[in-house]
Amino acid sequence: MNFNERYAADKELIEKALHSLLQGKEPHGDIYDAMNYSLLAGGKRLRPVLTLECCRLCGGTDIQALSLACAVEMVHTYSLIHDDLPCMDDDDLRRGKPTNHMVYGEATAVLAGDGLLTAAFETALNAAAYLPAQQVVEAAQTLARAAGAAGMVGGQILDMAGEGRALALGEVEELQRLKTGALIAAAAELGCIAAGGSEVQRAAVRTYAEKLGLAFQIRDDMLDVTATAEELGKPIGSDAESGKSTFVTLKGLDECGELVERLTGEAEAALAGFESPEFLLALARSLVDRKS
Amino acid sequence: MNFNERYAADKELIEKALHSLLQGKEPHGDIYDAMNYSLLAGGKRLRPVLTLECCRLCGGTDIQALSLACAVEMVHTYSLIHDDLPCMDDDDLRRGKPTNHMVYGEATAVLAGDGLLTAAFETALNAAAYLPAQQVVEAAQTLARAAGAAGMVGGQILDMAGEGRALALGEVEELQRLKTGALIAAAAELGCIAAGGSEVQRAAVRTYAEKLGLAFQIRDDMLDVTATAEELGKPIGSDAESGKSTFVTLKGLDECGELVERLTGEAEAALAGFESPEFLLALARSLVDRKS
Repeated sequence: MNFNERYAADKELIEKALHSLLQGKEPHGDIYDAMNYSLLAGGKRLRPVLTLECCRLCGGTDIQALSLACAVEMVHTYSLIHDDLPCMDDDDLRRGKPTNHMVYGEATAVLAGDGLLTAAFETALNAAAYLPAQQVVEAAQTLARAAGAAGMVGGQILDMAGEGRALALGEVEELQRLKTGALIAAAAELGCIAAGGSEVQRAAVRTYAEKLGLAFQIRDDMLDVTATAEELGKPIGSDAESGKSTFVTLKGLDECGELVERLTGEAEAALAGFESPEFLLALARSLVDRKS
Repeated sequence: MNFNERYAADKELIEKALHSLLQGKEPHGDIYDAMNYSLLAGGKRLRPVLTLECCRLCGGTDIQALSLACAVEMVHTYSLIHDDLPCMDDDDLRRGKPTNHMVYGEATAVLAGDGLLTAAFETALNAAAYLPAQQVVEAAQTLARAAGAAGMVGGQILDMAGEGRALALGEVEELQRLKTGALIAAAAELGCIAAGGSEVQRAAVRTYAEKLGLAFQIRDDMLDVTATAEELGKPIGSDAESGKSTFVTLKGLDECGELVERLTGEAEAALAGFESPEFLLALARSLVDRKS
């Protein structure tokens, strides 16, 4: 299997698991419809792929990682629903589809996000069917720290607070470290925890994912300038239009390109101690080259 | 110590723990201020008191229950913040103070709720410092099930969906069972889990709390009609004004009074097998008699 085939296979495994998660629940109004609308809207599934692959990297099996992988994707999905709300970024489109609140209304969208965040922890804890309880506790703690006010939620606060004013490079880095980096790093760590990996392995996959997460974000900022709307599935140039400080506005496209290269190299280097890092090396490389 | 003194002592223990939870965190904007504003706004602390007392009832110590008790209160607090949002109940006052979004704005209020819900799970999982990991997993699972789309979030969806139309008694019961009953029952169960209680004990405290939770809600509906605004710290008659179906509009005050009596008796009966249920018996009784 080459890289693309393996990524597709990982994604299919995750899609199937996500599809089954909220099925057969006693319906209360349209809450599960609204949750599934966003959870099953596709996307790269980068975070759960990281969880699966870091678990394999550390010698674990897919069944050990799958609930945790789904949990991370649920946290990511809830954050997108809440970020899109009228009182936040007020976005109408996400991945080319109407955003959750455009379809279900604002109240249900808030609750769908709340429901997904809660379901994320329930799903992570259900890993106890396959893992020792101590590993499950550690994994769920890691997820909570990355998702909460000291992580993703804190990053979104900084993002909102920074709107309409110019940010320094350090502020943009801090914002992105929290808003997107923390959960990406946690995704990788959860895979390692699921596999019962060592502290050294855990630190290594964390470094890999932190570098990759930052490179991913810088590449995102570059694509907002260079890609076509069709490629991205959302309006381009939206950062510049809103006067937002990004890596590109602060450092320019060329320097950003070099930075992405350097970070990708550092991500690759972090995996030097593992036996079969080929897929994760190719993954880091694919994010540099992506067009959307 | 009489009942009031013991309730006050429990409350103080909980207040102290809640105060310490979000201290000393690296600040990101005003997220922790917003979270603490609502978390430390007082209130009865009924749910964490239930967790503490059900832990004692089952032979456990306070330190075993305290993180879980705080976690339940954090879930309760997040739900109040989100329920008060303009897109939900659009309330300006809560416990006589401006609601979270009136003080911090809508975006921060959404994120403060998200942060508290996430911190609730982090706090629950931190019980692992005092409890076997298996008990922690079980407690956090119980909390997630009660808080999510199959519990509290589902209840809020039904509540929103029911606005502006008459509900049948069964619908009001189902709504309340999910919206408030599920978390109250979980609060009691978490105490029993913390103490390492038996399945029989767990079922008993659950029944106690379910009956007490429903009685509590019916009493709430009665107070909306009979209490003064000063006693409640919020406008009275708001249910009738909004044309909302409540236990009172459906059954009348007298029958509601009888129902509260009956449920309280059933709650008391559920504790027959325990050695020292005095406090929890008095608690059930105090909710019948409360004026606010």
